[in-house]
Amino acid sequence: MSRIYNFSAGPAVLPEEVLEEARDEMMDYRGCGMSVMEMSHRSKMFETIIQEAEADLRDLLEIPDDYKVLFLGGGAHHQFAQIPMNLMKNRVADYIVTGNWAKRAWKEGALYGKANKVASSEDKMFSYIPDCSDLPIDPAADYVYICENNTIYGTKFKKLPNTKGKLLVSDASSCILSEPMDVSKYGVIYGGVQKNIGPAGMVIAIVREDLITDDVLPGTPTIMKYKTQADAGSMYNTPNCYCIYICGKVFKWLKKLGGLSAMKERNERKAAILYDFLDSSKLFRGTVVKEDRSLMNVPFVTGNADLDAKFVKEAKAEGFENLKGHRSVGGMRASIYNAMPEEGVRKLVEFMKKFEEENL
Amino acid sequence: MSRIYNFSAGPAVLPEEVLEEARDEMMDYRGCGMSVMEMSHRSKMFETIIQEAEADLRDLLEIPDDYKVLFLGGGAHHQFAQIPMNLMKNRVADYIVTGNWAKRAWKEGALYGKANKVASSEDKMFSYIPDCSDLPIDPAADYVYICENNTIYGTKFKKLPNTKGKLLVSDASSCILSEPMDVSKYGVIYGGVQKNIGPAGMVIAIVREDLITDDVLPGTPTIMKYKTQADAGSMYNTPNCYCIYICGKVFKWLKKLGGLSAMKERNERKAAILYDFLDSSKLFRGTVVKEDRSLMNVPFVTGNADLDAKFVKEAKAEGFENLKGHRSVGGMRASIYNAMPEEGVRKLVEFMKKFEEENL
Repeated sequence: MSRIYNFSAGPAVLPEEVLEEARDEMMDYRGCGMSVMEMSHRSKMFETIIQEAEADLRDLLEIPDDYKVLFLGGGAHHQFAQIPMNLMKNRVADYIVTGNWAKRAWKEGALYGKANKVASSEDKMFSYIPDCSDLPIDPAADYVYICENNTIYGTKFKKLPNTKGKLLVSDASSCILSEPMDVSKYGVIYGGVQKNIGPAGMVIAIVREDLITDDVLPGTPTIMKYKTQADAGSMYNTPNCYCIYICGKVFKWLKKLGGLSAMKERNERKAAILYDFLDSSKLFRGTVVKEDRSLMNVPFVTGNADLDAKFVKEAKAEGFENLKGHRSVGGMRASIYNAMPEEGVRKLVEFMKKFEEENL
Repeated sequence: MSRIYNFSAGPAVLPEEVLEEARDEMMDYRGCGMSVMEMSHRSKMFETIIQEAEADLRDLLEIPDDYKVLFLGGGAHHQFAQIPMNLMKNRVADYIVTGNWAKRAWKEGALYGKANKVASSEDKMFSYIPDCSDLPIDPAADYVYICENNTIYGTKFKKLPNTKGKLLVSDASSCILSEPMDVSKYGVIYGGVQKNIGPAGMVIAIVREDLITDDVLPGTPTIMKYKTQADAGSMYNTPNCYCIYICGKVFKWLKKLGGLSAMKERNERKAAILYDFLDSSKLFRGTVVKEDRSLMNVPFVTGNADLDAKFVKEAKAEGFENLKGHRSVGGMRASIYNAMPEEGVRKLVEFMKKFEEENL
């Protein structure tokens, strides 16, 4: 048995020691005689798991006391609807469209009211983040929505948009916990956990308390009111217990590594190895404007689709998995989330150098 | 390490050999060098997992070709809304209220139209299934809704209601796969998987194809249209991959044991051990009308709350976990899903006999 280097964009690589612990606890969690999968969510044992997970996440992100942490079943696509259902009081919202998922969120928002596209980078295949310093914010806008890190295109907001006093809502699925965030600048931060945190099937939402009310759009499912889950500590219904358990282990792993400042350093170092090579390569090039490059998702191309395919195939044979770009864009993409070891990136670059020598 | 007998109502006991396999595959699924948790849902490897899971479920339930099988993120509470959103064309539906979850579904239905309570057993603490042979079905009703097995109260529909030609929708969360079902009698069967199938965080919905359309209520989230997931093979967004993987293993385990007819026999035998004892006991008694007793959830009481508490405590000390009744009803409840071995039930009854001798 040997573990490969998994550059998947999500579900994605998890820390090896987290998986080892989960393996060792599979039949019997800490002497309780059952697996966490089998545990009543109302048991003391599971209560401790969910409470520790929340406390550790609060520590990591320094979440202010007036924000609730919600563990929500389903995925980011549920949030595309849940956000307007809960926040679109005036039935107006502004969306910044920087990729496929932002676009889907924007289209979903339009089901519930006037969803303005106030900026977009679609003109250049989403290869940059538009200037958001002076956007035509709608005076009636209930919020301004961004997808903070664009998994498919490899861009990241390095500076948050000027929302002119409006609430900021961020889909941070693919960058959450990769570096510190100033939570107080947001109304809602949410993320599908399957990229940088845990297994698929759950969203973590961090929601400012004053936004959690019974005043939701008519027809909002009870389970999709933030208030329902906020009042019940995310246990109005049976939560995704096993996912919470794995996420909790990842939070502890992050704390042990020094927290999010340490992760930022580590992620910058890792990304630099790959970007520096791309900038010097005669065969490969990055596809994103330098100043908007993501630390998490690094798309690159040779400029020749056949050569791209050859690269992906040969890389796979060498144990570098999931380097194929998203089906909507082609080329290659290396997702180098928190759990990707620096060694994995360094070995990938070695392999790219070798491939370059052989194919230039 | 020793495994206890876990009578939890859900999340609940899983087959030991399923957990052992999951443990052994945790670091490296069949030589692919990664855990199933880390696997792209678009990978060949995962495609095989989800396709085999669906095929095995189709085999087990003999699902007709004109029904789709959907693996949906979230829980049954999402379905409480999703059912009317997708099916309530006339904005009318009939609900049979046989417990807390049926009641919640009925109340949720009322958010979307006229939700008639056409029968209820609330007059006697939901301890029976009402006569459903001649209900006042609304001529405009889009469907008739039941909760087929009531986890909290331990009742089960042994005969499906006469819907007078209307569509039947069943929440079968706590009885699905415990015995054969004639799928063709239903419009929709759905179940949260955390009771009789796998870990929490997903629903399996079996939906007749003609009901899967774009004609949904205004404001239905895209992700909650059955059509969205039906068209995408449950992969419009990232599904709960790990849960699907575990469910798939449970399906194979069920097939190995002889399928659902064999499970029915086994479950009847198991339940009889407990019910026969309850019927002969001088201390304990079952709380449900005999003909409506569930094979999966067996509530019982001594009639004395202090003695109930003593029993739960002493049982726990002997390795019988989660025997406390639901917080809304008290007393005891033994959930004896598919994965509870007959030995577990037999030992429980032995312990109950001993407790009876000591406390009568």
